[in-house]
Amino acid sequence: MAAAPHAQLQKRPGNYSALSPLTLLQRSAYIYPSKPAVIDDRYTLTYLQLFTRAKRMASALRDVGVNKGDTVAVLCFNTAEMLECHYSVPMAGAVLNTLNIRLDANTLQYILKHGDAKVLIYDTGLEAVVEQALDGMDQRPLTVAVDSGAGEPGKLAVHRYETLLEQGNAQDDWVRPDDEWDAISLNYTSGTTGQPKGVVYHHRGAYLSSLGNAMAFGMGPDTVYLWTLPMFHCNGWCYTWAVTAIGGTHICLPKVDTDAIHTKTTQHRVTHMCGAPIVLNMLINDFHAKGHVLDQAVRFAVGGAAPHSATLDRARTINFDITHLYGLTESYGPSAFCVWQNDWQTLSTDQLAGKLARQGVGLFAIDDLRVANMDDGAAVPPDGHTMGELVMRGNTLMKGYLKDPAATSAAFKDGWFHTGDLAVVHADGYVEIKDRIKDIIISGGENMSSHEIENVLYRHPAVLEAAVVARQDEKWGEVPCAFVTLKEGLDTSEDELIAFCRESLSHFKVPRHFIFGDLPKTSTGKIQKNVLRQSLKS
Amino acid sequence: MAAAPHAQLQKRPGNYSALSPLTLLQRSAYIYPSKPAVIDDRYTLTYLQLFTRAKRMASALRDVGVNKGDTVAVLCFNTAEMLECHYSVPMAGAVLNTLNIRLDANTLQYILKHGDAKVLIYDTGLEAVVEQALDGMDQRPLTVAVDSGAGEPGKLAVHRYETLLEQGNAQDDWVRPDDEWDAISLNYTSGTTGQPKGVVYHHRGAYLSSLGNAMAFGMGPDTVYLWTLPMFHCNGWCYTWAVTAIGGTHICLPKVDTDAIHTKTTQHRVTHMCGAPIVLNMLINDFHAKGHVLDQAVRFAVGGAAPHSATLDRARTINFDITHLYGLTESYGPSAFCVWQNDWQTLSTDQLAGKLARQGVGLFAIDDLRVANMDDGAAVPPDGHTMGELVMRGNTLMKGYLKDPAATSAAFKDGWFHTGDLAVVHADGYVEIKDRIKDIIISGGENMSSHEIENVLYRHPAVLEAAVVARQDEKWGEVPCAFVTLKEGLDTSEDELIAFCRESLSHFKVPRHFIFGDLPKTSTGKIQKNVLRQSLKS
Repeated sequence: MAAAPHAQLQKRPGNYSALSPLTLLQRSAYIYPSKPAVIDDRYTLTYLQLFTRAKRMASALRDVGVNKGDTVAVLCFNTAEMLECHYSVPMAGAVLNTLNIRLDANTLQYILKHGDAKVLIYDTGLEAVVEQALDGMDQRPLTVAVDSGAGEPGKLAVHRYETLLEQGNAQDDWVRPDDEWDAISLNYTSGTTGQPKGVVYHHRGAYLSSLGNAMAFGMGPDTVYLWTLPMFHCNGWCYTWAVTAIGGTHICLPKVDTDAIHTKTTQHRVTHMCGAPIVLNMLINDFHAKGHVLDQAVRFAVGGAAPHSATLDRARTINFDITHLYGLTESYGPSAFCVWQNDWQTLSTDQLAGKLARQGVGLFAIDDLRVANMDDGAAVPPDGHTMGELVMRGNTLMKGYLKDPAATSAAFKDGWFHTGDLAVVHADGYVEIKDRIKDIIISGGENMSSHEIENVLYRHPAVLEAAVVARQDEKWGEVPCAFVTLKEGLDTSEDELIAFCRESLSHFKVPRHFIFGDLPKTSTGKIQKNVLRQSLKS
Repeated sequence: MAAAPHAQLQKRPGNYSALSPLTLLQRSAYIYPSKPAVIDDRYTLTYLQLFTRAKRMASALRDVGVNKGDTVAVLCFNTAEMLECHYSVPMAGAVLNTLNIRLDANTLQYILKHGDAKVLIYDTGLEAVVEQALDGMDQRPLTVAVDSGAGEPGKLAVHRYETLLEQGNAQDDWVRPDDEWDAISLNYTSGTTGQPKGVVYHHRGAYLSSLGNAMAFGMGPDTVYLWTLPMFHCNGWCYTWAVTAIGGTHICLPKVDTDAIHTKTTQHRVTHMCGAPIVLNMLINDFHAKGHVLDQAVRFAVGGAAPHSATLDRARTINFDITHLYGLTESYGPSAFCVWQNDWQTLSTDQLAGKLARQGVGLFAIDDLRVANMDDGAAVPPDGHTMGELVMRGNTLMKGYLKDPAATSAAFKDGWFHTGDLAVVHADGYVEIKDRIKDIIISGGENMSSHEIENVLYRHPAVLEAAVVARQDEKWGEVPCAFVTLKEGLDTSEDELIAFCRESLSHFKVPRHFIFGDLPKTSTGKIQKNVLRQSLKS
């Protein structure tokens, strides 16, 4: 049978091009040439300036030897230069590898080597760790120093950022991806165990994530986005591109500081920000303590843990509007949003906290999000109780792990991306994560979620942080053991915490042991439960 | 050279799927199962119901012999069934061919034959013309009658819509496109000359248009969209899919009627609507005359001609917020938006009308929009004066014309889609269309825009409609000739109109001849200038 006549109509230059977030900067520069694209403490760039500078830097990078597909690593604070690199590097045809500014020198060196970084753009405020990281490397990347004022003018660097940029020619065509499946960036996970893995993003996924995030978070041309989230973290959950896509304004924030956030929010009439729970909690507590009230509602998207009802109450007083979302490095940041339902308006704060505690539903480009039975992969019933692994598929999941086919295949086995998170599905279809698979505690044949126990502990007024892990037990197999950090100046006891837990938890879930002290963390602030488990064994 | 390691990461079922607006219905049905998706005078469907019915009808269509790539034609008013067909037909793997309800039987027959329609779903209110259209066809499509109440129960039809739908199985998997480049719909142009051309849309373009239109028009989950635009027209400018994508509510409107629009807008708290200038003008005049004021702002996107300052003034009083956009059947409807700039807030109504008269800038998925010099294709200077052809490229331009490779190649020559519209570019980069290329008048070697002259005539209080075409002239080559329809009960004269035109136009642009009377129109309401030109020759 001959192909249907409409199937004979082929792609042409006029009706097909590779999707890329880079085209969205070009569009915004065309529409809003004199609108502020990015406001840094040192200067403001309009959209035309940002686009022109990005094209110029792309040209300069090519001139110093960056070829299509090469890796350009960037170690910077949340500055205008950092945002600019999200455009200039892929516009040179290269792959952007942003680095966590809190990484130690060894890990940095590992990543630079593993990612084959050809160029390293770094802030002079981080020169000490860069010097250590480069020490002993046979093939050093070409160094480019950004003088943001955070450090002395770079002595280590071969190039100064501004000087290099000026050498470029903004009239040069920027390099469009040959294929939208081409890599745009490389983001290393901060695995709590083992070496970090290099997660590769493609242009198509970055484009779709940008549009999806802008829509899901209610953004428009009047959006003013404050960078409380590190841009190095999953490319700032793709908001580096999303805010540009809709022609909003980026407000830089080199360091997370409550007073700076308050000042900038007021001064620039910020409408949106994102961050980890620790940032949200700090902000809300500090704003509350200082009596700050925002004069217009600010939307805050928190990822990583659900906001507590006390947090929600305070947030409302301050005029923060909280959205809970969920994602992983592998999913370009956000892949699920706890999408608001209008009938939640009448709920009490506690009820609402219960709703918002869920990770929710898939973002626009996630085709399917399933809690899969660990045995056969079938969807678990939506009973809010039966646990399974959260798996998903769609167009905003990574290309794979760099140079790690085994890990890539494992992550995508059976046609789904496996998050490694244990979750339940509620009657309304919203998923709620109960634990990491490896953090689940099995006591007397019953699964229990370490998160559930930690959530109870966090509600105790004296508890600053808590982590619950399994401890081997002759009788029960495993029993929960709690590591707790207390708030400064406050005190409690094991007995009091046990009694407190018994008010909310089945008795078998109440930790048998409590250990007080500081908790070990990764460079991104994740508690290292593997270290805690190890400490119990030794 | 070996491919870079990141280039070795291949597409997998978990991280790649064909983009399609159909997945967005699935998503909204998951998130908003009990939210009204579509409200018809006869019934309301929730998102879950719409999705379930669409899957069931898709299954039923396959059972009656619809195969992948087959054409299913639909001739319906703006009803729930019509919206449903935008999902059920492509979910059966078929190509949706919506037909203009004002077409004559001959043209309908031409389209049914040319498009190889295998099934025709029609409203019984249109049975008479369907009967004529099918008369004499060797291979008749299978007929399915929708009893919307507009006509008698269909006698002609082999199937009743509801009965057929009930035969389907909603548990059957719906057919996902093998490739996002696969056809999703077929829309015939209402060319002012010759036979209509079949414009083929693909799933990728429909998906990107949907997201882009939702974003550009400021839509979110609280959007309530009233169907003042025919859904048969470029699939309702893709709002059939866009409103669903963001989980808004569709309000059906079988016939454009001011009172119905006022009632529904108030009753359902409508936020957005679209339409041709004739609809906007009618609405605003009627609302104004009846003293209707909307109790919340309603955004109205008008495509096809710029709103006049008098219209804008009245619109503001009524609480309509007007957006001007531009598109063609070939560009999935809207391809340019007159994007609002904040510094327009302080403009006078006349100045604002001047800004809004422009077609603006490209939509998100339009990579480039250029006014190309007719000689060499280079971009004309942004001087608001130099004319050229508006051309564009991007991912929301048709696959091509069905069974017409010559017209397809011509439309896409030199790597751009050619709109056939003459335009200028203003200093801010916004394009303004001056005329169709074939409607331009060349007098004494000077190009003049028939639109410019018509716009002046439209400002005269007695003029209802005006069309200006070239008339052959021995001395000047061509001179402008005006065809004018006067408003009921009002009068004017050739001399008065000449004097009126001279106040605003260079003398050589003032029409030499005026002919009063009704204007010939196509089925979509476009004035047929070719008929007027012909009448001058004979």
